Amino acid sequence: MNFNILKKSANTSARLGELETLHGSFATPVFMPVGTQATVKTMTPDELKEIGAKIILSNTYHLYLRPGHEIIREAGGLHKFMNWDGSILTDSGGFQVFSLGELREINEEGVTFRSHIDGSIHFIGPETSVEIQNALGSDIMMAFDECIPYPATFEYVLSSVERTTRWAERCQKAHNNIDTQTLFGIVQGGVYKELRRKSAIDIVSLGFEGYAIGGLSVGEPKKEMYDMLDFTVPLLPDDKPRYLMGVGTPEDLFEGVIRGIDMFDCVLPTRIARHGTVFTKKGKLVVRNAAYARDFTPLDPSCDCYACKNFTRAYIRHLINVGEILGIRLTTIHNLHFLVTLMQEIQKAIEGDYLLELKDEFYANFGILQYM
Amino acid sequence: MNFNILKKSANTSARLGELETLHGSFATPVFMPVGTQATVKTMTPDELKEIGAKIILSNTYHLYLRPGHEIIREAGGLHKFMNWDGSILTDSGGFQVFSLGELREINEEGVTFRSHIDGSIHFIGPETSVEIQNALGSDIMMAFDECIPYPATFEYVLSSVERTTRWAERCQKAHNNIDTQTLFGIVQGGVYKELRRKSAIDIVSLGFEGYAIGGLSVGEPKKEMYDMLDFTVPLLPDDKPRYLMGVGTPEDLFEGVIRGIDMFDCVLPTRIARHGTVFTKKGKLVVRNAAYARDFTPLDPSCDCYACKNFTRAYIRHLINVGEILGIRLTTIHNLHFLVTLMQEIQKAIEGDYLLELKDEFYANFGILQYM
Repeated sequence: MNFNILKKSANTSARLGELETLHGSFATPVFMPVGTQATVKTMTPDELKEIGAKIILSNTYHLYLRPGHEIIREAGGLHKFMNWDGSILTDSGGFQVFSLGELREINEEGVTFRSHIDGSIHFIGPETSVEIQNALGSDIMMAFDECIPYPATFEYVLSSVERTTRWAERCQKAHNNIDTQTLFGIVQGGVYKELRRKSAIDIVSLGFEGYAIGGLSVGEPKKEMYDMLDFTVPLLPDDKPRYLMGVGTPEDLFEGVIRGIDMFDCVLPTRIARHGTVFTKKGKLVVRNAAYARDFTPLDPSCDCYACKNFTRAYIRHLINVGEILGIRLTTIHNLHFLVTLMQEIQKAIEGDYLLELKDEFYANFGILQYM
Repeated sequence: MNFNILKKSANTSARLGELETLHGSFATPVFMPVGTQATVKTMTPDELKEIGAKIILSNTYHLYLRPGHEIIREAGGLHKFMNWDGSILTDSGGFQVFSLGELREINEEGVTFRSHIDGSIHFIGPETSVEIQNALGSDIMMAFDECIPYPATFEYVLSSVERTTRWAERCQKAHNNIDTQTLFGIVQGGVYKELRRKSAIDIVSLGFEGYAIGGLSVGEPKKEMYDMLDFTVPLLPDDKPRYLMGVGTPEDLFEGVIRGIDMFDCVLPTRIARHGTVFTKKGKLVVRNAAYARDFTPLDPSCDCYACKNFTRAYIRHLINVGEILGIRLTTIHNLHFLVTLMQEIQKAIEGDYLLELKDEFYANFGILQYM
């Protein structure tokens, strides 16, 4: 993997970069659509390309349980299995083990948990996570970590952060495909600056090709999240990509980019799409509402996605109202296109040194209160 | 609407024809995918074109209830509402009023029923059905009829057939858009030859641009259905299209075509697709089954649809197994492509006078016992 910074923002910490994997290169900052179960929900790989996506995220926990990573290994890896020739980042499974698995028991070795699907008992530790991700063959792998819930005591977070560092080192040792897959480390530490610092220093000292900030956007106030970014990002190497995990509202993308984040992922755009809510330049729109039953305009008149070029709010409202799959296909395409396109605009704004102006204009139109 | 017969089969009653509407022309015999709620389930109009569909069917009953035909009228008609520029045939609502509506009460005027969605009370009669279909702006409209359940007594079928004829005449009088929309009559009569004959004579005497045979494939043995076709089709004018309603297994397509049927529709291919069953040249395949978990071949190796060109049984099996929408998108594309392509092969076989040979070969490979 290669990462080059092409331009630094004049008056923010934002960077325009280029990240290259064996499956192509793409500009950063980048938003990665989430394909949990080897598919970005409702979409084909061709549709992902059409909206401009070049890297997607997939979930190790889900693929380990179903269909099982050995099947994907036999298929020739995740790219071949799902017929996606762009880049793929896989998470470590850590977040889902803690948030979805039941009766989880954590010790130094790893985590024993019950599957949320059939109650069967499983174990994932650093070595298992790496082995699964090696089988999946993702371009970027994540170290196995504990995503600490919010709130948590200082003592708990401290011991967790120390264990996450030990796990990160074990992941490095277990990683077999260093020629084709890149491993990122994850900084944890909850909302304790002292522990964020400790985690950052320890993880960076292990030496990774990229660094994620985990454990944010888990219920803490926005201000705490942004404060943690302000504090943590400067502790990370300047020349490596920085990835803010699980974050993806439009305002969080702006605030993250401005603080020096290069990569984002979030289920939000696809999840709200399935509930009939879409992004527009003028804010969120619940197209499922009866108010749009006779609205024969596109979801967003300024948008050139497939849904907006071909269908009206009235039609999409009807489809979602009667439970037709095409409805949520169209809202999903639109929302992902919206965020991918927003990131392209952000890239241009970094290039042209007008990122804060773009942000002000976007916030004013979208109806976001300025945080800073 | 124009209908031209280009070639008659040498040793069967099959005909190769061309049917032209304001939205294009297409070869017959034709299979029409069903787009009940202004969408062929899971598919975009572009995907329909890609599999070769040129005419689809949509359901008056459903569109009347949701979103309401007045909204579709305001949208500029069903073609514009759903962005489909091919041809559309709408049914009369009769079948659904009887099969889905609750507490239905039938009298000379029409049918009063409770909506299967919210229990609200509605009335549809011949004039209402035509008015709704005029609002939808379909290319081909169907006369409002009673689809008689199987079994039914001779006396009941007799009185129903007579009423259906009176309703057909009222539909003709109520039809306002004769320049842009064509009205088909429907022959009923259950499995009573005498009543099929009466219905055919009466409906034909009213003079329609096309004739449907209704009330078959409603639970009667296959032999009875084929016998009714053998008996009824010769009673219909040779120069008008003949449409066998709600029929669409591969063998029923062959048997219908051989007996002189030009048009078919059926929810079967899309419905079984959503349950993980696909057509192949070698018979039906339940790709959802665990047997295909490690099968990295296409659904049907001889098929060139989008699903078969890009994905494996193992992947599609995984998607359906975990409830991912892309799975049923792919099986739906495949099954509709299968039937549309089968009809194209049937057209060529009529042209080349080898229809019975094609049938024998298809039946042998697919595993269908010969009926005749």
